Amino acid sequence: MAKEGTEMAEESEQILDKKEPENPVTAADLKEMRAVVLTGFGGLNKLKVTKKPMPEPQEGEVKIRVKACGLNFLDLMVRQGNIDNPPKTPLVPGFECSGIVEAMGENTKGFEIGDRVMAFVNYNAWAEVVCTPLDFVYKIPDDMTFPEAAAFSMNFVAAYMMLFEVANLREGMSVLVHSAGGGMGQAVAQLCSTVPNVIVFGIASPFKHESIKHSVTHLFDRNVDYVPEVKKISPEGVDIVLDCLCGENTGKGLALLKPMGTYILYGSSNMVTGETKSFFSFAKSWWQVEKVNPIKLYEENKAMAGFSLLNLLFKQGGCNQVKTAVQKLLSLYDQKKIKPVVDSLWALEEVKEAMQRIHDRGNIGKLILDVEKSPTPLMANDSTETSEAGEEEEEEHEGDNDIKERMPFIQ
Amino acid sequence: MAKEGTEMAEESEQILDKKEPENPVTAADLKEMRAVVLTGFGGLNKLKVTKKPMPEPQEGEVKIRVKACGLNFLDLMVRQGNIDNPPKTPLVPGFECSGIVEAMGENTKGFEIGDRVMAFVNYNAWAEVVCTPLDFVYKIPDDMTFPEAAAFSMNFVAAYMMLFEVANLREGMSVLVHSAGGGMGQAVAQLCSTVPNVIVFGIASPFKHESIKHSVTHLFDRNVDYVPEVKKISPEGVDIVLDCLCGENTGKGLALLKPMGTYILYGSSNMVTGETKSFFSFAKSWWQVEKVNPIKLYEENKAMAGFSLLNLLFKQGGCNQVKTAVQKLLSLYDQKKIKPVVDSLWALEEVKEAMQRIHDRGNIGKLILDVEKSPTPLMANDSTETSEAGEEEEEEHEGDNDIKERMPFIQ
Repeated sequence: MAKEGTEMAEESEQILDKKEPENPVTAADLKEMRAVVLTGFGGLNKLKVTKKPMPEPQEGEVKIRVKACGLNFLDLMVRQGNIDNPPKTPLVPGFECSGIVEAMGENTKGFEIGDRVMAFVNYNAWAEVVCTPLDFVYKIPDDMTFPEAAAFSMNFVAAYMMLFEVANLREGMSVLVHSAGGGMGQAVAQLCSTVPNVIVFGIASPFKHESIKHSVTHLFDRNVDYVPEVKKISPEGVDIVLDCLCGENTGKGLALLKPMGTYILYGSSNMVTGETKSFFSFAKSWWQVEKVNPIKLYEENKAMAGFSLLNLLFKQGGCNQVKTAVQKLLSLYDQKKIKPVVDSLWALEEVKEAMQRIHDRGNIGKLILDVEKSPTPLMANDSTETSEAGEEEEEEHEGDNDIKERMPFIQ
Repeated sequence: MAKEGTEMAEESEQILDKKEPENPVTAADLKEMRAVVLTGFGGLNKLKVTKKPMPEPQEGEVKIRVKACGLNFLDLMVRQGNIDNPPKTPLVPGFECSGIVEAMGENTKGFEIGDRVMAFVNYNAWAEVVCTPLDFVYKIPDDMTFPEAAAFSMNFVAAYMMLFEVANLREGMSVLVHSAGGGMGQAVAQLCSTVPNVIVFGIASPFKHESIKHSVTHLFDRNVDYVPEVKKISPEGVDIVLDCLCGENTGKGLALLKPMGTYILYGSSNMVTGETKSFFSFAKSWWQVEKVNPIKLYEENKAMAGFSLLNLLFKQGGCNQVKTAVQKLLSLYDQKKIKPVVDSLWALEEVKEAMQRIHDRGNIGKLILDVEKSPTPLMANDSTETSEAGEEEEEEHEGDNDIKERMPFIQ
């Protein structure tokens, strides 16, 4: 687990010193860093940990010595190239990290070297060092650990903005959330608990139910149709549906809404875990989703919305809106009303196993890449590190649950 | 203009007395009442004022001696049968009225005879007496006139729920509203003014601009394309689009939204004022509207919603949600932050001219049917009362502005 403390400036200065007894700092260390690299779109075998040139902050950028990075389902879709306008490979994946400010570019005010921060990055987060514009960097409270901070940014900001800005969650409302055991699901559940009398319908794999039953009001098995289950409890439906699956769930979600309810699509993970073994293209998923007539929404008094935090941040100039949400969230954290749930910590070298775990929906809470963690020794029968499986093989791999030998650090 | 005062119980008792000197109450007066009747779907000639049996309140209903009724664009669509599942004719149109409680059915608590009220009615509002369930009846402040109350219910409740519950209007946002000079447009503008720094883009006929320029921030001519006009002032778009037109305006509205913005469809009046002279059927308008892919909303961080107050009230059991909105609105009225704008008062017998005026978008604020008003004497060249124009003729009639001889009482 990443080390944390209150005397950060001191710790920051010691970062390189710390290694001296065992590994003296060489000129190469200052010019290079380790990073996870996606060599091409495809299976797990496209991920490698390699040395990359040390990035230097441009004007307005903050250079961060990374301690922890968040792993999201979206990273899996990026790996497959299953997103709109995928960037060119090779690339360093990852959209969020936490760490310590190591340097600032010109005209970069508001931070000091040694500040403990969390940050959004437009790719490149899964590395020892990251540079990102200061608008995407936020100081974190002294008592927030780095893994917590890396688990905080995307999930809590997205959950907050969806619940309180898009859907206008108020007292007595009900919320349906898929993947209730994941990082986002747990963020949604916690934020719902900050409003009186909110009912949360959560959908999750049965093995997670015992662990998360206290965070949601009603739990459903993700292997059964949730529509009749919800209707049994609440015949009139729910006020807010948060859908990260897409596909047929859009129609189901809209149908489950009460009048004045809001359906929000914030992901399309069904496009990844589809039944066939071939990769879905983004264009294909576009056509698979049923389009909605605005007059239907008029007749039924319903709202349909979409939310993509990354588009808001990196394509649509929404950093001020996000900053406001972060401030409100940090205030809730200070009041101990919310606390990120970390599922497990993984070394950069263990990114494949971590991705397998999120693919298999094995996690409860957030998966974190802990930059300072050493890889857990491989078990004798583990073969993933040397596997050169092609895509077809890989997909079967992901479908089975047979590469669990390397045990992560579970909090 | 309807008479109002503070001693309502007294006034209520005097209702029948008042007429005595000129028109002694007969047994027929107690068993009958005047009402506007729509004899079949079609043009203005389908509207008549006739005697109808006096309604009596059923269990849970309030009987109201009507003083004023609201006239909405929707009533025009009802007249044409251009709504989903139109009811059978003959029918008495009208969805809102104000007046004095005259009797209550069994188990009807919370009101007393003589209470000044406003009410929603599922048709039948345009009559001297109305019975409606107590959940749709609200007491009004002493200083609110009956025409104001009749102008208040539908427009302000719809505007409030759209702005604050569907779209979550907050400080510094911008709102685009069509028909800014109409009853709804003026309600939207006033409610926007209760939030700091809200920018209102209003679209209205040029002749209204002088009258309403103080209520909105930017005014556009409804005869020019508003999209480039808005973009000139706010290249990034607007936060909330309220669309009562439908058709191509849905696409335009969605395109004009900022990220995190909300488009709300609350009417489809373009289906009535279309270029052709044939009546549009509701089914036809359904297919004319472009459907929206939820993934597009996801990519663009946008919300698309529909709002139908009547469906919410009469089909979807939303009376408690509406009651909460009414309470908040009456508080704003008491604080003198909002005040319904009444365009003109019309006798029941003048309903055709009133409808013509709303069709021609001649009104600034709300058109009110004043039940106690006598028809203004016809001008010598007025022929509407005896016109037996068919639908085709009628439609031309509505297109021209040639039946303005009968002058309404303009406030």
